[in-house]
Amino acid sequence: MSEQRATNITWHEGSVSRAERQQLLNQKGVTVWMTGLSASGKSTIACILEQMLLHKKKHAYRLDGDNVRMGLNKNLGFSAEDRAENIRRIGEVAKLFTDAGVIAITSFISPYKKDRDLVRSSLKPGEFIEVYVHVSLAEAEKRDPKGLYKKARAGQLKNFTGIDDPYEAPEKPEILIETEKHKPEDAAKLILEYLEQHGYLRA
Amino acid sequence: MSEQRATNITWHEGSVSRAERQQLLNQKGVTVWMTGLSASGKSTIACILEQMLLHKKKHAYRLDGDNVRMGLNKNLGFSAEDRAENIRRIGEVAKLFTDAGVIAITSFISPYKKDRDLVRSSLKPGEFIEVYVHVSLAEAEKRDPKGLYKKARAGQLKNFTGIDDPYEAPEKPEILIETEKHKPEDAAKLILEYLEQHGYLRA
Repeated sequence: MSEQRATNITWHEGSVSRAERQQLLNQKGVTVWMTGLSASGKSTIACILEQMLLHKKKHAYRLDGDNVRMGLNKNLGFSAEDRAENIRRIGEVAKLFTDAGVIAITSFISPYKKDRDLVRSSLKPGEFIEVYVHVSLAEAEKRDPKGLYKKARAGQLKNFTGIDDPYEAPEKPEILIETEKHKPEDAAKLILEYLEQHGYLRA
Repeated sequence: MSEQRATNITWHEGSVSRAERQQLLNQKGVTVWMTGLSASGKSTIACILEQMLLHKKKHAYRLDGDNVRMGLNKNLGFSAEDRAENIRRIGEVAKLFTDAGVIAITSFISPYKKDRDLVRSSLKPGEFIEVYVHVSLAEAEKRDPKGLYKKARAGQLKNFTGIDDPYEAPEKPEILIETEKHKPEDAAKLILEYLEQHGYLRA
């Protein structure tokens, strides 16, 4: 290890370690991966969770359709291959944020078990928290805030998850949210409590 | 705006704002984009800068070949198209980190002006700091720590920047580092001073 001195400070060779970043932020980097049908309430819960974390002076960042589909993944369509690549890239970015010590909250339908498991396996044990935001299809169709289910039923939207494309539910998610029982705020609290109890909110 | 109450706290609809994250971190998100020939010293300077920022309790994250080429961009090769896509994705990820309030430091040769300018234009004014890490080709070839120039001269490496592929120097970089004059530590200090003087190290 070569060393370089600046007044009284020693700069070591190589990068700042993850442990050092975590000490600075007093938290552990982790990916909170929310999965569930369209209209399950993933984004609403993610937003409230992000606010609750900020209130505790924790650094979280949300990855969702708004900041990913229009940016990093704007050159992807909706073919099976592109959907897999969409989730793969989101997983890689979540991994970078996790490495940076941030609590990355992703909020995508991510319907295929294989794609989610690939993300899980690319992270270290404990770095991937799968949150299954469950809603019955009937209830999701009733909510249908963007009218997407209606369009899908009318055949105007193809390959819509839950209608003519499968949703593969997580078998052993770290956290199960039953949105027909839990209000979004209570759901966010459940996740927050999980993070607290498992030591993510301290270095 | 619908509002939800938890004891005495009001959770607003929508995401935590960038301003809120910046207040939390007491800094501004920004992309410090280092560009220069192979062996110019980009990574060494980036590492020292990262350490100096940590020492000031600032949250920085370095994007480089190690954590990007093997992850997010592992499905890209070295064709002209893939090289452009490589830089585009790095730019998009740096943009996400910038939005997250982090000081993103990228360290890639990024030889084409067009690709760098695309990243610049995707960020807001002041969010993209181009750092030209200048070294003469003769000096880079003399350093050649990984023996890459030697291989390129021998024709064992094709499309090597500076040998049989062009390096388009920035015309108006925010910061110019002359690595034949500045030691890596002094170069990192120059960048740190720029960040301080331009208000990035406070919210």
